[in-house]
Amino acid sequence: MIGPEIERLIQLLSKLPGLGPRSARRAALHLMKRRDSLLVPLSEAMAAAGESIRACSVCGNLDSRDPCTVCSDPSRDRSVICVVEDAGDLWALERTRAFRGTYHVLGGLLSALQGVGPDDLNLAGLAERAKDPAVREIILALNATVDGQTTAHVVTDRLTGSDVSVSRLAHGVPVGGELDYLDDGTLTAALKARRPL
Amino acid sequence: MIGPEIERLIQLLSKLPGLGPRSARRAALHLMKRRDSLLVPLSEAMAAAGESIRACSVCGNLDSRDPCTVCSDPSRDRSVICVVEDAGDLWALERTRAFRGTYHVLGGLLSALQGVGPDDLNLAGLAERAKDPAVREIILALNATVDGQTTAHVVTDRLTGSDVSVSRLAHGVPVGGELDYLDDGTLTAALKARRPL
Repeated sequence: MIGPEIERLIQLLSKLPGLGPRSARRAALHLMKRRDSLLVPLSEAMAAAGESIRACSVCGNLDSRDPCTVCSDPSRDRSVICVVEDAGDLWALERTRAFRGTYHVLGGLLSALQGVGPDDLNLAGLAERAKDPAVREIILALNATVDGQTTAHVVTDRLTGSDVSVSRLAHGVPVGGELDYLDDGTLTAALKARRPL
Repeated sequence: MIGPEIERLIQLLSKLPGLGPRSARRAALHLMKRRDSLLVPLSEAMAAAGESIRACSVCGNLDSRDPCTVCSDPSRDRSVICVVEDAGDLWALERTRAFRGTYHVLGGLLSALQGVGPDDLNLAGLAERAKDPAVREIILALNATVDGQTTAHVVTDRLTGSDVSVSRLAHGVPVGGELDYLDDGTLTAALKARRPL
């Protein structure tokens, strides 16, 4: 018999992506063996995140500041807005250190299957921001999936009439990738978009 | 830039078994999108576990009661003690509902590689419990690995002189397993330990 506190911990851990019932049990055991070094700090970090993290009222990024760290950084280029699906994609772009503009987090992608419509996304906020004459370019950094491309079309539609140029990420061979393993769609796109050396 | 609260959450989540840096980020995002349904309850469940869960002073099982739920259950058969590596293995045996005796949790396996010696395991407690004349049998339910078998030998050594019979789990074909996929060691063990139909 497992005690109710541990059962509940396992049950909640199993809701994390990447953990099933089995690995949730392993994680619970791991946590309880490391009470002071992991269980208590993690519980406190979660409580702190639950307390302080809010969606930025400007861009939708998750942060304890509002406007978020990116939006309130004076060194960021406010003339470029990069549109992403969620904060995870924003983090991925921030890790590259290749982008110095601002972001707009949609909060999801359109999906007929999952019942996500245009009203579920933060599209109105983007249209509003695009009206600012200081904004020159909007980059759509959305997944190269059907849902991502559908969303890109809808976002572009919403932006017609405003005076910004809309771009999307390039398709092509991933850096470090082998041609042999690439799908036909990517190879075709890479071939079409070939660049002079 | 990711805020420090989120960074810390990701860093702690990535210490869970089965989660790497990438899946920890995914988990953190998942948690923050489900603040009320997952982040806060999980934080509270962890805090509760950290508060109340202790190792049972009799068997070493993890529980909010001491003696643990198994040790304090009057319907359990106190004449049989099943020796396991950790509470996770105890849970696995409890799920089978096939064992009605009590347990003894060693807290690990001997391992030269990981520097785990006999003094790091709860062996003294087991020897003490084996002296009780009510105890008839000790079942070693340890991994069928080198470390598990080394530990089994050392446990058996410690129990010589006491008046208990020591047994181990059977080796053989896993139920539902296909012979074709079995290793030679298991097949040999299953053949040697064949049973009349």
